[in-house]
Amino acid sequence: MTIATAARPHLWRRLAAEFLGTGLLVAIVIGSGIAASCLSPYDIGLQLLENSVATALGLTVLILVLAPVSGAHFNPVVTLADWWLGRRTGHLPLVDVAGYVVAQILGGLGGAALANTMFETATSFSTTERVAGGHLVGEVVATAGLVLVIFALARTRRGHIVAPAVGAYIGAAYWFTSSTSFANPAVTIGRIFSDTFAGIAPASVLPFIGMQLAGGLVGILLVVLFFPTTRPPAAPRLA
Amino acid sequence: MTIATAARPHLWRRLAAEFLGTGLLVAIVIGSGIAASCLSPYDIGLQLLENSVATALGLTVLILVLAPVSGAHFNPVVTLADWWLGRRTGHLPLVDVAGYVVAQILGGLGGAALANTMFETATSFSTTERVAGGHLVGEVVATAGLVLVIFALARTRRGHIVAPAVGAYIGAAYWFTSSTSFANPAVTIGRIFSDTFAGIAPASVLPFIGMQLAGGLVGILLVVLFFPTTRPPAAPRLA
Amino acid sequence: MTIATAARPHLWRRLAAEFLGTGLLVAIVIGSGIAASCLSPYDIGLQLLENSVATALGLTVLILVLAPVSGAHFNPVVTLADWWLGRRTGHLPLVDVAGYVVAQILGGLGGAALANTMFETATSFSTTERVAGGHLVGEVVATAGLVLVIFALARTRRGHIVAPAVGAYIGAAYWFTSSTSFANPAVTIGRIFSDTFAGIAPASVLPFIGMQLAGGLVGILLVVLFFPTTRPPAAPRLA
Amino acid sequence: MTIATAARPHLWRRLAAEFLGTGLLVAIVIGSGIAASCLSPYDIGLQLLENSVATALGLTVLILVLAPVSGAHFNPVVTLADWWLGRRTGHLPLVDVAGYVVAQILGGLGGAALANTMFETATSFSTTERVAGGHLVGEVVATAGLVLVIFALARTRRGHIVAPAVGAYIGAAYWFTSSTSFANPAVTIGRIFSDTFAGIAPASVLPFIGMQLAGGLVGILLVVLFFPTTRPPAAPRLA
Repeated sequence: MTIATAARPHLWRRLAAEFLGTGLLVAIVIGSGIAASCLSPYDIGLQLLENSVATALGLTVLILVLAPVSGAHFNPVVTLADWWLGRRTGHLPLVDVAGYVVAQILGGLGGAALANTMFETATSFSTTERVAGGHLVGEVVATAGLVLVIFALARTRRGHIVAPAVGAYIGAAYWFTSSTSFANPAVTIGRIFSDTFAGIAPASVLPFIGMQLAGGLVGILLVVLFFPTTRPPAAPRLA
Repeated sequence: MTIATAARPHLWRRLAAEFLGTGLLVAIVIGSGIAASCLSPYDIGLQLLENSVATALGLTVLILVLAPVSGAHFNPVVTLADWWLGRRTGHLPLVDVAGYVVAQILGGLGGAALANTMFETATSFSTTERVAGGHLVGEVVATAGLVLVIFALARTRRGHIVAPAVGAYIGAAYWFTSSTSFANPAVTIGRIFSDTFAGIAPASVLPFIGMQLAGGLVGILLVVLFFPTTRPPAAPRLA
Repeated sequence: MTIATAARPHLWRRLAAEFLGTGLLVAIVIGSGIAASCLSPYDIGLQLLENSVATALGLTVLILVLAPVSGAHFNPVVTLADWWLGRRTGHLPLVDVAGYVVAQILGGLGGAALANTMFETATSFSTTERVAGGHLVGEVVATAGLVLVIFALARTRRGHIVAPAVGAYIGAAYWFTSSTSFANPAVTIGRIFSDTFAGIAPASVLPFIGMQLAGGLVGILLVVLFFPTTRPPAAPRLA
Repeated sequence: MTIATAARPHLWRRLAAEFLGTGLLVAIVIGSGIAASCLSPYDIGLQLLENSVATALGLTVLILVLAPVSGAHFNPVVTLADWWLGRRTGHLPLVDVAGYVVAQILGGLGGAALANTMFETATSFSTTERVAGGHLVGEVVATAGLVLVIFALARTRRGHIVAPAVGAYIGAAYWFTSSTSFANPAVTIGRIFSDTFAGIAPASVLPFIGMQLAGGLVGILLVVLFFPTTRPPAAPRLA
């Protein structure tokens, strides 16, 4: 156990942070989705604009707040990528990885329940089918991009701007990927329990998670290709 | 009286800043609410989008400008949380707390009057009933989150980003909480006097304030849980 | 002539920057106003949302780019406030003030012509009457706030965030002031020559400019009240 | 070959970054354009708002991520301007310029194909004619502004804020230029292959690229006029 690891917050505190953060992320996604679909019934694009702006802002703040505690992964794919990219230094032990993933999934379920409670919506299975060829490609692109954004910044020592960069990325990815960019297995599981605009039918979940894991692999490859070391490459300056 | 306290701006200047800041915050919330409901009569979601974007931007700027004077609380719950979290060092004397809360409430009333003057709207009691079970849960969540955001950043020595973080948080919370996130007793009182989209009927005020105080307590608990000291915890770095 | 003054860019370069910056600001305001009213004909609020987002982003960038050259005033009220607040040190000589104001007004006219050329719109006098009691109060509030934002940040040595703060402020002020926050005599004059959504009828111009000058005075008073010196006051830290 | 040049990432890695970045930029522009036109069929302004917000956020993130690798030009006009402005120091050799431009164009084509795959849209020639006098002036203004923003910041040693500044600039320029601000030959070529809202008919491409090159020249002139050296000019401070 290295000194760096020893200085981390206790594991229970980090797991609590992953639970809370993933839960609030799902509550933001589903809650703003419910609000948008109730308040803007005539234009689905406007609903998505409201949903994406709320998510981008809320996710940025969640990462800012909880990153000093747990790293603010809120996403099993990010946790797995962090484990793999730091495996030579024992950066994130496998037991922590398992704990993070469980906390994230429980958080996702809790967040869906919280959103349904706030909006007095029945918690039931979603009926929104999302499996289509293009959607699956969209999830690969969305998740690969997310991993690239996070670790490109981490490996060039710009970890302090990960929060707004991830928020902005997700805000854009809602629109440019055909799947509206779930890009997160824990959030995908939470969204099963929202029979709304923001939900996902159970039958679509496994294909989505499969594509997210594939996208995570593509993202890791891109990180290794462009940022092989953690030292910042000398940037070609503009003239 | 410690040296740190002595070097603060005079109390009257801090109270003036709290009065002005809370007043302008309420003027922004109500003013943009009036403009939105007049100009976008066909879609309530679009009204809320306009209202939330204006509030997020305006609140960020207000905090930036007045934080060096009074700390830019603009909110009795924030003042109470600041008093409690710093009670061992006499950070904020109780007399200051009382002054801040009075200035904030007077500011909220003045802001409502200013908005009504600018838009030539009669100042009358709001008829917008907001008490519902889900709304009350929403206010607890909204206020707890606000307190967590502010003091998490303060305790990890990132006070210089509180302004945009709070603006972004409120921009998201308008959408993901069912109550549109008042999260502020002084603003709630000011909004009594706006019989518009942005108002709140007198009968809903006490329940809202009760939930805001409860949310403030939850927020303090989360701050103490995740950030027990004011030294930044060692962040688990990404790989 | 002090050393600090001698190291400034030549006056002609500063005047060119004020001309270009004010011109592009007016082109952004009018151009995005024309685009918004053509593309969103059914909802005036949506037009204003498009117009305000484009203006907030564009103004931020203009200030970022040209601040190192001329200070990026783009506004006679800001130039006059800068002259008055720095009068004891001969910060901005009166001849510069006169040059700045002329460059700004010429820029405003040029920007209106550029927007009309890009959108193939006839350059004619606006017929949009804007004089109403509430609008005049709105202009006082808008301009006072603008002056307070700029010089509060300057006097607390945060000049590097003036650009996004002013952009965010104007984005909010479009909504919370009843006048949509012109807050700038040079821009007001330019907008005479746009018979669109974004225009202002000649008869409304003098009252608007009068209120903007009054608002500038209020703003200076607030700056002196809250920030009497250019040293940052000791900020009351959050607990 | 200077030390600075030697320390750059290998050319193949920089070309891969330009290919990936330009490709994802075009995928963002076209993908969000398809989503917006499908989801908001009743208001073209709302479509453009969705498209412009997604592009501004996505472009900011792309530049943040890839700037340490290749400089994140993603645009032949930017590459040419970088070559010209740094020509005295051999900043960017001509062989690199050629490689960058080829990678950008191939990326643009790949990005269009990716967007069409994600959205299951047939890849066909666009039928959106865009040549009009005002549109051509718009492209000159848009591209000149883009070059001015990038190199003004680079020459005043604020390269770390180029990413959000360029994102914000493009977000505004979608609205204030009549052409919706293509401002990029590689992106223009990619958008030939999208028969949607975001496309451009082949016959309009050469005039657009011609105006973009002309705008690049105007931009270089403005950079040289306002920022003749790479040392930051002494900024006239606000009082």
